[in-house]
Amino acid sequence: MQVNMKVNLYHLGMSSDTHDFPKLFGDVKFVCCGGSSKRMEKLANYFTENLPVNYPYGFKPENLCHSDRYVMYKVGPVLCVNHGMGHGSISTMLHEVLKLLRMANCKDTTFFRIGTSGGLGLPGGTVVISESVVDDLLEESFEMHILGKRVRKPTHLDSSLNNELLKIATELNYNAVIGKTLCSNDFYEGQARLDGAFCDYSKEEKLQFLQKAHIKGVKNIEMESSCFSAFCTRANVRAAVICVTLLNRLEQDQIDAIDELEEWEQRPVNVVTQYIAHHFNDAYN
Amino acid sequence: MQVNMKVNLYHLGMSSDTHDFPKLFGDVKFVCCGGSSKRMEKLANYFTENLPVNYPYGFKPENLCHSDRYVMYKVGPVLCVNHGMGHGSISTMLHEVLKLLRMANCKDTTFFRIGTSGGLGLPGGTVVISESVVDDLLEESFEMHILGKRVRKPTHLDSSLNNELLKIATELNYNAVIGKTLCSNDFYEGQARLDGAFCDYSKEEKLQFLQKAHIKGVKNIEMESSCFSAFCTRANVRAAVICVTLLNRLEQDQIDAIDELEEWEQRPVNVVTQYIAHHFNDAYN
Repeated sequence: MQVNMKVNLYHLGMSSDTHDFPKLFGDVKFVCCGGSSKRMEKLANYFTENLPVNYPYGFKPENLCHSDRYVMYKVGPVLCVNHGMGHGSISTMLHEVLKLLRMANCKDTTFFRIGTSGGLGLPGGTVVISESVVDDLLEESFEMHILGKRVRKPTHLDSSLNNELLKIATELNYNAVIGKTLCSNDFYEGQARLDGAFCDYSKEEKLQFLQKAHIKGVKNIEMESSCFSAFCTRANVRAAVICVTLLNRLEQDQIDAIDELEEWEQRPVNVVTQYIAHHFNDAYN
Repeated sequence: MQVNMKVNLYHLGMSSDTHDFPKLFGDVKFVCCGGSSKRMEKLANYFTENLPVNYPYGFKPENLCHSDRYVMYKVGPVLCVNHGMGHGSISTMLHEVLKLLRMANCKDTTFFRIGTSGGLGLPGGTVVISESVVDDLLEESFEMHILGKRVRKPTHLDSSLNNELLKIATELNYNAVIGKTLCSNDFYEGQARLDGAFCDYSKEEKLQFLQKAHIKGVKNIEMESSCFSAFCTRANVRAAVICVTLLNRLEQDQIDAIDELEEWEQRPVNVVTQYIAHHFNDAYN
């Protein structure tokens, strides 16, 4: 990182001129992120009610971003930040949150991506904890373009953290697995959907591709885990990707408005909440 | 596009069950998009005040998206939609807006991406109209990954539309150019910034890369134009990318909070507003 007198986290709308980062963020131990801004607000409110955080009656978490690019909430040692859709959006957030944590002198931070995904051969509502991430070329790394060259970064995730999350999910009686995640920077053609504005392939070719991924151990498909895992590996922070499946992509493409949606989306949240609750006291030692 | 009884535009939060697309959107002739949701709200309010749109006193444009992924406003024949940051985000919006326009039987629609950018060798406040788009490997096309294979799509833009926009910008006394745009799906390393959370190259290597792009005719750098121009080319719709430069990337990386920012951001908006005003009556013929 460039040494600068003033650090401007442009897309978070925060700067070292206006924020005393060590004082305001020095106690952060957990960063939870997901795509949608409303889900992050809901998550922050849920943590406030379900973690032993001290706050006066009549108060709730406020959005700390002075920009409309992202939202960020702080609930004791937990930051909740949304990342929007795809690599371009999550990478900008991660660059700026990692800079924030460094300026705040945070140590031993654990990152979670909590999300929704398409499942492969799994019933809707399954909690998938990512063992590692393959991209939409089925390569197990994240491709970046730096100074005009293709560079690949490893997409490792922490197996001991994963095992702890799986244990919690199983205790909560959720259908839960650890497996590979396929990450594409595109919701439609990158994920072999037939229902985008364009589609130059047949249903058979789609299924061949998804079956090939399935045989490689892919359990679910989403849009940010390769960038997320590569950035966390580079930053040497523990990280997990925990997503619920909303549909079985071997059977359908469209996500219908289903009655179970809200309960399913809550499953990875409940797992991460229990994990943080178990480790909450460690956070202040 | 797959023929479906029900079409669910999941990320816009609209569906054929709840929306009569031909009735509600059949008159759309212009789609204006930009990254930020607040800018799109401001744009819709600006169009309402500056185009000959009929609306009763006491009314303002409302956000039509029933999802928190995007915002969409409709001001007469103009849709204003935000696209978030990067290809993963803009591609999802474009798939769903193109499907919406097809279902609404819209013809002869013109798309604009109105944005901000880093300039190359240009003073801040310059209006850059993209002649074509190169990616962050400096190749003049957009790389997609479809069914596990790399596919490249052309990033053409409409030269007669561009010339008309340049004429308007010049009449408004703006510093304006037509030139190539470099598009990267990453704000920091993909654009050779030194001030991200990670940077494995020197200032000299950064400048070498930016100079190489500059010599190729690149006038500015942003994050969505390659996907945008490739999608509009595939959909056979006229399209332009018109961005203001906020800084000269040959001199600096950080965007400071500058007094001129608001006035600069308004420049491409004013150009597009005049263009739409000139063609407003055509829209209803």
